[in-house]
Amino acid sequence: MNADADPPTFVPARPDDSRHMAHALALARRGLGRTAPNPAVGCVLIRDGAVVGRGWTRPGGRPHAERIALDQAGSAARGATAYVTLEPCAHHGRTPPCADALVAAGIARAVVAIEDPDPRTAGRGLARLAAAGVALTLGVGAQAARAVGAGFLTRVTCGRPLVTLKLATSLDGRIALANGQSQWITGPQARRRGHLLRAQHDAILVGSGTALADDPALTVRLAGLEDRAPVRVLLDRRGRFPGPLGAGARLFDGTAPTLVVTESDRPALPKGVARLDVCDPGDLHDVLRQLAARGITRLLVEGGGTIHAGFARAGLVDRIVWFRAAGLIGGDGLAGIAALGLDALADMPRFACIERLDLGGDTLETYVKAEA
Amino acid sequence: MNADADPPTFVPARPDDSRHMAHALALARRGLGRTAPNPAVGCVLIRDGAVVGRGWTRPGGRPHAERIALDQAGSAARGATAYVTLEPCAHHGRTPPCADALVAAGIARAVVAIEDPDPRTAGRGLARLAAAGVALTLGVGAQAARAVGAGFLTRVTCGRPLVTLKLATSLDGRIALANGQSQWITGPQARRRGHLLRAQHDAILVGSGTALADDPALTVRLAGLEDRAPVRVLLDRRGRFPGPLGAGARLFDGTAPTLVVTESDRPALPKGVARLDVCDPGDLHDVLRQLAARGITRLLVEGGGTIHAGFARAGLVDRIVWFRAAGLIGGDGLAGIAALGLDALADMPRFACIERLDLGGDTLETYVKAEA
Repeated sequence: MNADADPPTFVPARPDDSRHMAHALALARRGLGRTAPNPAVGCVLIRDGAVVGRGWTRPGGRPHAERIALDQAGSAARGATAYVTLEPCAHHGRTPPCADALVAAGIARAVVAIEDPDPRTAGRGLARLAAAGVALTLGVGAQAARAVGAGFLTRVTCGRPLVTLKLATSLDGRIALANGQSQWITGPQARRRGHLLRAQHDAILVGSGTALADDPALTVRLAGLEDRAPVRVLLDRRGRFPGPLGAGARLFDGTAPTLVVTESDRPALPKGVARLDVCDPGDLHDVLRQLAARGITRLLVEGGGTIHAGFARAGLVDRIVWFRAAGLIGGDGLAGIAALGLDALADMPRFACIERLDLGGDTLETYVKAEA
Repeated sequence: MNADADPPTFVPARPDDSRHMAHALALARRGLGRTAPNPAVGCVLIRDGAVVGRGWTRPGGRPHAERIALDQAGSAARGATAYVTLEPCAHHGRTPPCADALVAAGIARAVVAIEDPDPRTAGRGLARLAAAGVALTLGVGAQAARAVGAGFLTRVTCGRPLVTLKLATSLDGRIALANGQSQWITGPQARRRGHLLRAQHDAILVGSGTALADDPALTVRLAGLEDRAPVRVLLDRRGRFPGPLGAGARLFDGTAPTLVVTESDRPALPKGVARLDVCDPGDLHDVLRQLAARGITRLLVEGGGTIHAGFARAGLVDRIVWFRAAGLIGGDGLAGIAALGLDALADMPRFACIERLDLGGDTLETYVKAEA
């Protein structure tokens, strides 16, 4: 909380608060992958137990969730309780501050899941509401809100996007046969889920090895979500692209923006493909900083094993989404995680499983970095 | 069913049959790992809705479950219904046939989960019951009974034990670091479960690589089960044991019987250690045949990766029990499944997950071979 903002007084949560906040969180999730650099926020307005307005931050990051909910409610917002998944903003951007808008609409109470660490807000939104006599409750649904807001929060507090590895492996952790065959280890249900995962990210990163081996398009091919075009990031330290193989690469097909991370400054990058400005393409911290500078909050890393190992070695894996087929490939197959060079088991990067789904014979497991 | 046995008539199952059979199956499981070469069977006697007798096949394979339940019930068995997880035997072994004993006790009805494929019974038990006027119901709890009886059934019908691989790996399927460190990848809860698994098997097999690297005792170290001593099988194709390292190996400590599979006929095997008589120690089918000939019905294979891959390549993996820690080791670690030499993903050995447990941060998954 900002030092210059009066610390507001909070009132305790009420029985229905969790339920309404869960509603707001479900709305917020609709924005994942589309609101960057802004957070995906959800807002529900409740008066006399009835929903009078619902909103979620729109693609591109505005209008904000609160604005949409207030417009929907109109005069019914007067005396209502606002459930917001993140502290309402207090700064004038392209739109007036949401805190002021809530006050102007006559909101009686605001239930906020978590504070906004953005230095332009950071408690000022809550302070404005309190100063206007709005009753405040903070912390309802905080854990879920931190999960939904993780990309935005990581960008604001760490200066990098949230990093999620996506792996599709056999039971024994292999992503391809020795001969390179990898299509398809998992079944259609898992692959569709993989496209949904892409839709929920601002950018998808692959290494040049994967780009050469699989020529992935990294687009969202899922009915109803064809409009999603996450930024494609090609990590090409050795400057292998565009090269003879790269000329016709799908990553350069112009259907979505593409960024290339490379030392080489060959001028031959196709139209619509930009070079990411990094000092050392081998420094993943630098790469992530530059992606954050371009507004990327949620980065999905889709291989290969060397890239995954690089992020793991650098301690930069926040989440792993692991699709696992119930079959064996064996030790001659390609490892989903390349060498980590561990000297002791105590040094294993550790995770905690937060979700498990059966997907037609395959399993989807979501892991988050374990608390140190 | 035997050709010389009159096919009996069956009556439909009743509402309570499943519940009573589940009880009998729970009793049967107590015998797993202790009744070989006999099956682990459970029997419950119900009269007027009350349990009047319960039994399970005792260590060493006798008395049989039915005999114990009948002795417990005494005259209360008259008019009762017997729930038995496997067709009662019809042959005179060291004990009179259980089918005759049920008839003599005046059982009115018998509910049997599955037939006994043992050619000495194979329908004759049911036929004797039917001939004596006992009402018969077959098939209640059949799937679970086949799972409990899998070792016995595999030995009788395929002439080999049921083969279960046990793996304890990282998320990426590694059983050790590059430097060999493997203790401990999984936590204490998973390791205790591993000892329970040993207790439920007739024999535990490891390769010479694992024996040299880890010097495992392969004993059951679990409170209350210290009396279990599954046969230890050392697959030592290259004749590395006893050798300089083997002399003091725990496998040769005499605390449990040990069988060595080797080509070498060095006379130096310690007291209590026998050589398994195989033509070709590299032929796993032959190894399993000889183990079955010694009465082994349930074999647990505890590594290493080369041994696991050998069983998988030979199509001899019936089940996998996979303990997985939520950490990464990376591609320089030791693979839990060594090279399988697959040319196409369609050739992956496939499995189906039938059980999943959380064990204090680790996961236990049980897989069975997928139907072809």
